[in-house]
Amino acid sequence: MAICYPSSPTWGRRIEQRDEAVRDGETTARLETDQHVKVVVFDSAVEGFFLTHYDFLARLEDLTGLPPGPTGLQPLPDMLVRLSRAPVVSISLIRGRATGVGSELALASDMRFASRERAILSQWEVGVGLVPGGGPMARLPRLMGRGRALEVLLGADDMRGDLAELYGYVNRSLPDADLDGFVDALATRIASFDKRAIIETKRLVNAASLPPDVEIAAGWDACLASMGRTAAQERIKTLMERGFHKPGDAENRLGYYVGQLGR
Amino acid sequence: MAICYPSSPTWGRRIEQRDEAVRDGETTARLETDQHVKVVVFDSAVEGFFLTHYDFLARLEDLTGLPPGPTGLQPLPDMLVRLSRAPVVSISLIRGRATGVGSELALASDMRFASRERAILSQWEVGVGLVPGGGPMARLPRLMGRGRALEVLLGADDMRGDLAELYGYVNRSLPDADLDGFVDALATRIASFDKRAIIETKRLVNAASLPPDVEIAAGWDACLASMGRTAAQERIKTLMERGFHKPGDAENRLGYYVGQLGR
Amino acid sequence: MAICYPSSPTWGRRIEQRDEAVRDGETTARLETDQHVKVVVFDSAVEGFFLTHYDFLARLEDLTGLPPGPTGLQPLPDMLVRLSRAPVVSISLIRGRATGVGSELALASDMRFASRERAILSQWEVGVGLVPGGGPMARLPRLMGRGRALEVLLGADDMRGDLAELYGYVNRSLPDADLDGFVDALATRIASFDKRAIIETKRLVNAASLPPDVEIAAGWDACLASMGRTAAQERIKTLMERGFHKPGDAENRLGYYVGQLGR
Repeated sequence: MAICYPSSPTWGRRIEQRDEAVRDGETTARLETDQHVKVVVFDSAVEGFFLTHYDFLARLEDLTGLPPGPTGLQPLPDMLVRLSRAPVVSISLIRGRATGVGSELALASDMRFASRERAILSQWEVGVGLVPGGGPMARLPRLMGRGRALEVLLGADDMRGDLAELYGYVNRSLPDADLDGFVDALATRIASFDKRAIIETKRLVNAASLPPDVEIAAGWDACLASMGRTAAQERIKTLMERGFHKPGDAENRLGYYVGQLGR
Repeated sequence: MAICYPSSPTWGRRIEQRDEAVRDGETTARLETDQHVKVVVFDSAVEGFFLTHYDFLARLEDLTGLPPGPTGLQPLPDMLVRLSRAPVVSISLIRGRATGVGSELALASDMRFASRERAILSQWEVGVGLVPGGGPMARLPRLMGRGRALEVLLGADDMRGDLAELYGYVNRSLPDADLDGFVDALATRIASFDKRAIIETKRLVNAASLPPDVEIAAGWDACLASMGRTAAQERIKTLMERGFHKPGDAENRLGYYVGQLGR
Repeated sequence: MAICYPSSPTWGRRIEQRDEAVRDGETTARLETDQHVKVVVFDSAVEGFFLTHYDFLARLEDLTGLPPGPTGLQPLPDMLVRLSRAPVVSISLIRGRATGVGSELALASDMRFASRERAILSQWEVGVGLVPGGGPMARLPRLMGRGRALEVLLGADDMRGDLAELYGYVNRSLPDADLDGFVDALATRIASFDKRAIIETKRLVNAASLPPDVEIAAGWDACLASMGRTAAQERIKTLMERGFHKPGDAENRLGYYVGQLGR
């Protein structure tokens, strides 16, 4: 769900987007061109989840057969790099699980705030023999340094809000009761400022901090190649048999479950 | 105020500099050439302030009409990038408000230590429609990652010592009663070491970590352009009417005041 | 001591390596080519020390007369940069002192975990007039930002586990009683994953985060040059007279002792 600050005449205050948002180039295009929106907050309308992993029941062709976006990247990485560059401030409000694409959307956002009690962040992919595809190898080391980034990516485990704050995975971890109010106040505050000053300041931060697109492209290619390998297909199949891809314990404790696959 | 370690025959132990220091290319030139000084500590002689924002009562021509310094940059960014490269170790001891240029001087220093109870750091500029001019878009993401840098710059709010420590804005936040002793001990310690080993080690850290001057120049240009825009002029005028640029509540709680301008 | 996960038929579970490990190009070559090992943990078999400084009783010719390794760098920096790039995950488990080369081995590893009560990290070299040689000017700013890196390198003081965690010098500092179990669980977990997914993910993190070899080479050259200077030779001689290079107080509290040399 995206909440826009200030309310735009064409958008309304809240737009139901749910999981479709991350594949939705149209949303990104509107953020790139809307003259009113200064801040967009991504939060969740689904209890227990911010946004989670890919749909592994979909055909791989449905993912790879799509035409590239304006950056020349495939639609998912295209959407993520455009979000980071968009002339609007994006904030991820993380309550529940942000795994895989969920973590990657948060990392492509400009800021991230997590519920201390209810946020779980992870890049779980290596745990099933995959390489992550949405850019975390490029983004995590620039946020938290090489050592902690390797722990997140190669450990492939669930991480709570407080450790995510210590590592710089999120800006801050806040008590769950304070999280919505804090993010709303920050978004409202920024939306009261001059849009051009916001945009130019962000653009200069981007020049100093965004990874080059070629690193995002390399990660995407490595991810697609890993999907076709036996090691990944067998691990995902086993995980499916244990309840993956259905509401329940395997999704709720994904870090634990991927740690059991190769034993 | 700059305190030099060890005491230099030409400098004396303490040099009153106050706000003039930051525009003072001569100070920088002496730090670049003095054979005795190994460490310089910047602290404040003014209660409640480390160093604060530009003088908005000065004529813009007085700022833009100055000839560039040896780096080719205008005097303020020239002084800041030369300080970072100077063959001397610079430490900012932050007690009171370090806003705008004050934050930028601290960021251009080699290290920063803050009073837990009495330090306030901020880049307030976006809050009045300005782009910051002294390099924080280049320096903050390299210190604390893109997400926290964007929060500091686009939130434009006051930040206390403990959060500044968590974010890496300062090296450490210390109890106010311990701050002077800690910084004096560290400066005295470093000043007891061999100057050439200090300089060569710093030079190699600089190669790994300093932003290129072109990023500083781009920020400066964006800042000057923003000063001429109506959005900034109107906000600064309103802020003046509310007590800005005079001792009092608007200066003391600048983060709060800029958050009220656009509502 | 290196512990390999999973147990390799040719390596066995534990290989006694002690201090020789860091000069041992053969160890690195085996990590580069072994098909079974996915994770290697470096810990210590010597009470009170992870790994400490160079042997200053050895002849300098023994260090500089060696042929370069495959990277074109001299053997020590060659070993360190190859470890960072090796197709295996390296974890430093730091209990006791990690000084000089010990810190540099930890920094070249993929992850670092420290004992809260018993780890001491330091780059002590500037304290005796030397420039560090194994890459910390290149690696520390990328882990913890320029300001904290300069404090570690120019302060040349001993740092405990908790501050190392705050600074990002280590991934985490853990209670001593929990450290072995934590690292063993993480290493076992990663070793249960698919080796190719691990390697490709690490390779992409490396692309985003490793310093270029030329920075490592420049640091090595500056270190060698500093060893020949009078300032360093005199300080090391004085330190030897105070007990350096023998078990005892000078080695145990090296940070304190180097702080006394120039007073």
